[in-house]
Amino acid sequence: MSEAPRKPWGGRFAEPTDAFVERFTASVGFDQRLARHDIMGSIAHARMLGRVAVLGEAEVTSIVAGLQGIGTDIQAGRFQWQVALEDVHMNIETALVERIGEVGKKLHTGRSRNDQVATDVRLWLRDELDAIDGQLHEVLTVLVDLAEREADTLMPGFTHLQTAQPITFGHHLLAWFEMLARDRERFADCRRRVNVMPLGAAALAGTSFPIDRLYTAQLLGFDRPAENSLDAVSDRDFAIEFVSAAALLMTHFSRMSEELVLWSSAQFGFISLADAWCTGSSIMPQKKNPDVPELLRGKTGRVNGHLVALLTLMKAQPLAYNKDNQEDKEPLFDTVDTVRDSLTAVAGMLPGMTVNAERMRAAARAGFATATDLADYLVRHGLPFRDAHEVVGRAVREGVVSGRDLAEFTLDELRAFSPLIEADVFAVLTLEGSVAARDHLGGTAPAQVRAAAARARARLDNFQGAR
Amino acid sequence: MSEAPRKPWGGRFAEPTDAFVERFTASVGFDQRLARHDIMGSIAHARMLGRVAVLGEAEVTSIVAGLQGIGTDIQAGRFQWQVALEDVHMNIETALVERIGEVGKKLHTGRSRNDQVATDVRLWLRDELDAIDGQLHEVLTVLVDLAEREADTLMPGFTHLQTAQPITFGHHLLAWFEMLARDRERFADCRRRVNVMPLGAAALAGTSFPIDRLYTAQLLGFDRPAENSLDAVSDRDFAIEFVSAAALLMTHFSRMSEELVLWSSAQFGFISLADAWCTGSSIMPQKKNPDVPELLRGKTGRVNGHLVALLTLMKAQPLAYNKDNQEDKEPLFDTVDTVRDSLTAVAGMLPGMTVNAERMRAAARAGFATATDLADYLVRHGLPFRDAHEVVGRAVREGVVSGRDLAEFTLDELRAFSPLIEADVFAVLTLEGSVAARDHLGGTAPAQVRAAAARARARLDNFQGAR
Amino acid sequence: MSEAPRKPWGGRFAEPTDAFVERFTASVGFDQRLARHDIMGSIAHARMLGRVAVLGEAEVTSIVAGLQGIGTDIQAGRFQWQVALEDVHMNIETALVERIGEVGKKLHTGRSRNDQVATDVRLWLRDELDAIDGQLHEVLTVLVDLAEREADTLMPGFTHLQTAQPITFGHHLLAWFEMLARDRERFADCRRRVNVMPLGAAALAGTSFPIDRLYTAQLLGFDRPAENSLDAVSDRDFAIEFVSAAALLMTHFSRMSEELVLWSSAQFGFISLADAWCTGSSIMPQKKNPDVPELLRGKTGRVNGHLVALLTLMKAQPLAYNKDNQEDKEPLFDTVDTVRDSLTAVAGMLPGMTVNAERMRAAARAGFATATDLADYLVRHGLPFRDAHEVVGRAVREGVVSGRDLAEFTLDELRAFSPLIEADVFAVLTLEGSVAARDHLGGTAPAQVRAAAARARARLDNFQGAR
Amino acid sequence: MSEAPRKPWGGRFAEPTDAFVERFTASVGFDQRLARHDIMGSIAHARMLGRVAVLGEAEVTSIVAGLQGIGTDIQAGRFQWQVALEDVHMNIETALVERIGEVGKKLHTGRSRNDQVATDVRLWLRDELDAIDGQLHEVLTVLVDLAEREADTLMPGFTHLQTAQPITFGHHLLAWFEMLARDRERFADCRRRVNVMPLGAAALAGTSFPIDRLYTAQLLGFDRPAENSLDAVSDRDFAIEFVSAAALLMTHFSRMSEELVLWSSAQFGFISLADAWCTGSSIMPQKKNPDVPELLRGKTGRVNGHLVALLTLMKAQPLAYNKDNQEDKEPLFDTVDTVRDSLTAVAGMLPGMTVNAERMRAAARAGFATATDLADYLVRHGLPFRDAHEVVGRAVREGVVSGRDLAEFTLDELRAFSPLIEADVFAVLTLEGSVAARDHLGGTAPAQVRAAAARARARLDNFQGAR
Repeated sequence: MSEAPRKPWGGRFAEPTDAFVERFTASVGFDQRLARHDIMGSIAHARMLGRVAVLGEAEVTSIVAGLQGIGTDIQAGRFQWQVALEDVHMNIETALVERIGEVGKKLHTGRSRNDQVATDVRLWLRDELDAIDGQLHEVLTVLVDLAEREADTLMPGFTHLQTAQPITFGHHLLAWFEMLARDRERFADCRRRVNVMPLGAAALAGTSFPIDRLYTAQLLGFDRPAENSLDAVSDRDFAIEFVSAAALLMTHFSRMSEELVLWSSAQFGFISLADAWCTGSSIMPQKKNPDVPELLRGKTGRVNGHLVALLTLMKAQPLAYNKDNQEDKEPLFDTVDTVRDSLTAVAGMLPGMTVNAERMRAAARAGFATATDLADYLVRHGLPFRDAHEVVGRAVREGVVSGRDLAEFTLDELRAFSPLIEADVFAVLTLEGSVAARDHLGGTAPAQVRAAAARARARLDNFQGAR
Repeated sequence: MSEAPRKPWGGRFAEPTDAFVERFTASVGFDQRLARHDIMGSIAHARMLGRVAVLGEAEVTSIVAGLQGIGTDIQAGRFQWQVALEDVHMNIETALVERIGEVGKKLHTGRSRNDQVATDVRLWLRDELDAIDGQLHEVLTVLVDLAEREADTLMPGFTHLQTAQPITFGHHLLAWFEMLARDRERFADCRRRVNVMPLGAAALAGTSFPIDRLYTAQLLGFDRPAENSLDAVSDRDFAIEFVSAAALLMTHFSRMSEELVLWSSAQFGFISLADAWCTGSSIMPQKKNPDVPELLRGKTGRVNGHLVALLTLMKAQPLAYNKDNQEDKEPLFDTVDTVRDSLTAVAGMLPGMTVNAERMRAAARAGFATATDLADYLVRHGLPFRDAHEVVGRAVREGVVSGRDLAEFTLDELRAFSPLIEADVFAVLTLEGSVAARDHLGGTAPAQVRAAAARARARLDNFQGAR
Repeated sequence: MSEAPRKPWGGRFAEPTDAFVERFTASVGFDQRLARHDIMGSIAHARMLGRVAVLGEAEVTSIVAGLQGIGTDIQAGRFQWQVALEDVHMNIETALVERIGEVGKKLHTGRSRNDQVATDVRLWLRDELDAIDGQLHEVLTVLVDLAEREADTLMPGFTHLQTAQPITFGHHLLAWFEMLARDRERFADCRRRVNVMPLGAAALAGTSFPIDRLYTAQLLGFDRPAENSLDAVSDRDFAIEFVSAAALLMTHFSRMSEELVLWSSAQFGFISLADAWCTGSSIMPQKKNPDVPELLRGKTGRVNGHLVALLTLMKAQPLAYNKDNQEDKEPLFDTVDTVRDSLTAVAGMLPGMTVNAERMRAAARAGFATATDLADYLVRHGLPFRDAHEVVGRAVREGVVSGRDLAEFTLDELRAFSPLIEADVFAVLTLEGSVAARDHLGGTAPAQVRAAAARARARLDNFQGAR
Repeated sequence: MSEAPRKPWGGRFAEPTDAFVERFTASVGFDQRLARHDIMGSIAHARMLGRVAVLGEAEVTSIVAGLQGIGTDIQAGRFQWQVALEDVHMNIETALVERIGEVGKKLHTGRSRNDQVATDVRLWLRDELDAIDGQLHEVLTVLVDLAEREADTLMPGFTHLQTAQPITFGHHLLAWFEMLARDRERFADCRRRVNVMPLGAAALAGTSFPIDRLYTAQLLGFDRPAENSLDAVSDRDFAIEFVSAAALLMTHFSRMSEELVLWSSAQFGFISLADAWCTGSSIMPQKKNPDVPELLRGKTGRVNGHLVALLTLMKAQPLAYNKDNQEDKEPLFDTVDTVRDSLTAVAGMLPGMTVNAERMRAAARAGFATATDLADYLVRHGLPFRDAHEVVGRAVREGVVSGRDLAEFTLDELRAFSPLIEADVFAVLTLEGSVAARDHLGGTAPAQVRAAAARARARLDNFQGAR
């Protein structure tokens, strides 16, 4: 095309569009990503227009064939995108007219770019949500598998990054499972609000053509058409909700990553990531850096930022559509990409992690991790909890001074703190005794971890949320 | 009490706690707000301990009575909160021991402040969610009432704050309804994840006492106990999810408020808020300022800020509980207060709004609002949409130059733009004709607005989400 | 290159790097933007190594020539970037070795990618800050020009979007000037903290080679070398400070844009943007949408988001460099692009704005804009301000009821509100009298606006901040 | 007072103000904090009105005395704040009229609450900035003192939380110094933009009274009056800039805190915080939790949140004052409180930290921390850096396999990796040799650390930024 393409709204304007403005206001650079769903929506719209006799049967056939051809070209990388045509919609529509002639100009009957783009984004996001759901299923399955494998592996449980009580590594992994399982639920809830069809809202008020929105919705797999045309073209809360759920997922990944980085340090030495998931240093040949969890941790910022971007964008916008909303796409697209890559990373990285059970166990043995067990022992022997707590506090202070764990005291030494203590105390002061004692729903006892893993697996099998 | 109260964890420490640290780390200044739910949780915990025979029947009776007495004192404003006791939990437990003696020290058996505070916050938030649900019901009812009243009131629909097409004010009000109805759903979804019981997780690993978490959960009305003890004490995603939903609600309020402020301006003059919902100026006696919608708009920032605060807080925290989490309460509390006040404001302000239907109608008449109708007319007479668009564009340009709306052209003048135009065109160029033509599900035709309002009312009647 | 390129840190590793990890951790997709500054830094580093005799003269000459050749290739688009080489640094260094042989491997002596990338980003950002400073100078000049032109143009000043007092449009434009002038100062302050050289920090601790950092700093135009090597490679506060300043600039643009959008509405009709700066509608032929200010307003969210992204990224990172920091670039780059495009947009859009002085004046006449002047008049005649305020309030209420402005009352009618009112009152009730009376530094009197514009111009002439 | 107090703007209104609205729109609950500065501003305003003969000398004397009396009452806690009077300004002005009679009503001549509140906030923030500057000076002095003390203490320097190279702890502490020194500069830069006087802007346009703003500015210690009245009452960028600087300070504190928490863990064991700066556990008697750094880390979220709140608040507000801006105070106040408490915490906590030099040194010895030194050695003996890197990489791999550090290899073993290695290599493989070799400006050599500390101390002595 040698001359500048004609703008779809050129009739009213006296001056040519400034070249900078053309670039500044164009969205085709990023919204071409919606092409497949734009074509899908256009085909359904054309079919509906045929059904209500706004288009003739031959016209529909021609339009549908034209759109399918364009779709093929785009997929094959043969399509020429033009900034001067502003966006994905006008690029495709213009190509349609070039390809099938005048009848192509009839496609836009009874719709507007406002409802068209809202429809495209929802169709696209629905597919991405389904892919994310599948990836989450995979990650959750990895976690249950690992949790079962590590149901007996002892490690220190931390609070304030201080050794608190012994737990099993399997129990820790199931904590991660629970976090991500809630994320999956949130995405599923979000999908119900995404899968509602704006098409038919036209610019903002609906159209004077006798459209059949239920039919279009059915063709496109939408749960229902949007109830109100103004709302359908102007709100982006579904996208913000998605990014909110993504921010929580990434926050969870940042917590898991923080732990993986800590555990990979020489000081902890609890785990080792596979070489393939680490990188080295350009200056320090000895380094094996946990780059992947670090990047995951860093990417949290990105998604939090997109959430703020979208909330700021929508703040105080009067109805209905404003050009501000063009800015909704890049944060949403990048959030999806970040989430999907992060899921791939987690699913790939975790199975290859090597667990150093010796280091974990040794760490749990230090730090008076069974002090609570001694307090509970005293309570079971009649001391009120608060008093037991004080007794054990004194014993720990003595242990710090003399550099010994509670299990390393003699019975007499222990009895000096409380005469309630008997020889059976040493059973509760072992790591195994401690974890085995936490034997209730949600507790860290290996039997409970196995039962929890089994329930988790059943939940995975039965999850119906997203579809 | 003349001497400094004893710290519950004082046994281990050699130095007195610095006074600044005491203030800096204390939370009782804000977490006393949880007192009622803390007592509720403690009573259930004591009853459960009795059921599993960790406490005797008399002990339970004494503890429950003591706690109820403290609850009464707090409600009556007679309770003396002490910063030196750090938080709401230790203040109440200390008072319990003072009141009922040694047996009070047994209450904390089998739990920790970590699971206790997580339980308190969830119980409290659940109640607030139910109150918010009720307030949303009220606001939504107001909107449906108004929408039915204004189903025929004509106004300009805007895109880009330019007159786009005529709509009815009732239709606009139902757009607001849809926005807030989704918010209500989000709160209901959130409630399912809030109503899960951490109690029994103890510090992080569960407890060695034979607790019955299902029983406690039932006593407290929780849907179920949390599956994993580490997760139960360390995550705050339920609070972040709530604040996310609140941020969307406030964003919606900011959009409604922006419109109310615009419409209250002399330039729009579409509505007038009741004097009771406005304030004046200390210097300009003529001012009647829409302070309430302005404040609502401003308060969006507050909630967005709290969302960022909580996301930042949780980012990269290793499991399980860290002191950082003490910072979770103030943003959450203030979000709830902001949401509830804002709902009160909206529910109170909207019914007293005076609608200036004349100004609305006059504004709709200007601005070539029925240009799309002319284009659709031409399409129905055989012109492809894109060509029709160009024809109308030329007519509008002529109208701008000569200062006339399309309906003010003569038939001959119109036919100069397209010979397809006949005398029946003037019907579609009226405001009434335009809105009546948008007669499909979601469209702005008064009949559709009435049908949509009826469906909205039915949804309100049947909404079961939150409970 | 037919086989996969060698990793610079490959020696230690036993497994091949997973393809996904390669892509996930690579930054060359975005950091190639730093190529020019990477080469500039490498040339200075090589020259410094020559000066301290770590490299021979011929080696320096060869390296510099090689780097310059690569720079030429990159600029000409002939350079082949490889994801497998991770980042801009390794791509260039690898090409250097290919081009000049073994000596190229000596370039990285005494530095690390950690100090290298920090140096690149600072050099790049310094240039962008200088460009932004120039663009701000242009926009500020446009504003002063316009303010002088519009020094006498009357318009309503708003508070709460209600007519408050008459002002001149020139005065309003100078308010915009002040906002942006502060932004310019902030960028200049930021530049002082940007223009500090990390090079020589090496990985984190400095290097064992006898480097001369003052010499390198001088070659690169840095004000000074960074004082501490750990800090030099690990902080990104300079970038966050830049994005903070950018967020304020965009916030100012969002406020200006909001006004431009409002003023372009049919209801205000104060201004009209040039056609070249607007776009039309695909469905409504009559629309002329203020897309550019809408987009500017929307882009505020983007930059706020990037600010949050970077703050989240840095939160709680232990020293020194962590891979998280790779995520610093995209938000920074996009912020720079957004700021620069926005400045271009504002500089281009404002001069072509058409002012509808009639509409502005008419709006100022309505709305009792001179009520304060009447109150001030009464004060000057002896009434305490608070009493004067009440008297005028009653007069305004009467005016609202009878539909007349204060200037339309008869003298007798006015005197019914206060006997202090004389015939000279009508002078203060005119718009011209009102603005002329605000004749002090910072006031809206045309003479003051002209004086303020002259001072503003002098400030522009003398601004030295950024360089 | 038995009846509801009179509103200052009551004349125009027909209905009583709704009680909820009164509470919802009132700010006196939080803005009473500005009382001292409000009175300071009012006294200067009255004196100026006297100087320009708008008030008589006796009137000024009476007003000043009245205001001073009210100030005394407020300070003594005797003042009765009334929500019905909305804000601090009307509470004080009403009390003034009650106290000195009619003349009190003249105080508000020539000003408005819009310029009054902007002035109050700036006066208040200026004082807080000066206090913050003093606190930062103290913290920075603590850091220099500690750095000098620990100039020779060896520890591992980390990248990716992996041991990278040995550094000295003094060097690490000076990295913290640099971070905070930049924060101090930013606050000083901010102060220049804070210390500009809005007073005289009145509601938005200036006033018709012959005010002398230079005189008022001089009385109040402002650098200059604001240049533009519209801008003076409507922008809050100075507050946002302050919160941005605070967010960076808190981000720095979060990084320092993260390290303190890590180093306090049993796994690192590098330091021990004083008992007074830690707290214990209600359930685990052995715990000594680093609560203060954890809280500092958590409080980062709070300030990031306030920054977002303020940016959201200002986004797209049309000029001039809108009620939204009432929401500016709470985030600003809480940011100041958080920053000041955090500074107190850091200044108090750091000096009492116990350093475990043995653990630090032992950690540095593990992890091949001197691998870079071996590479540099090889480069000095003629190997290109990239080749040296590969050689050392192979040696490290062998060391990992055989569980030995490089210094534990025999010379023959080392020569097997490269014949360039001689007996003198062992000097560079010691920790002392490694740090001593980094002997250039910014490097970690103890001599450089001492020199850097001396320069830092001189900068503290000469810092003039803030006043």
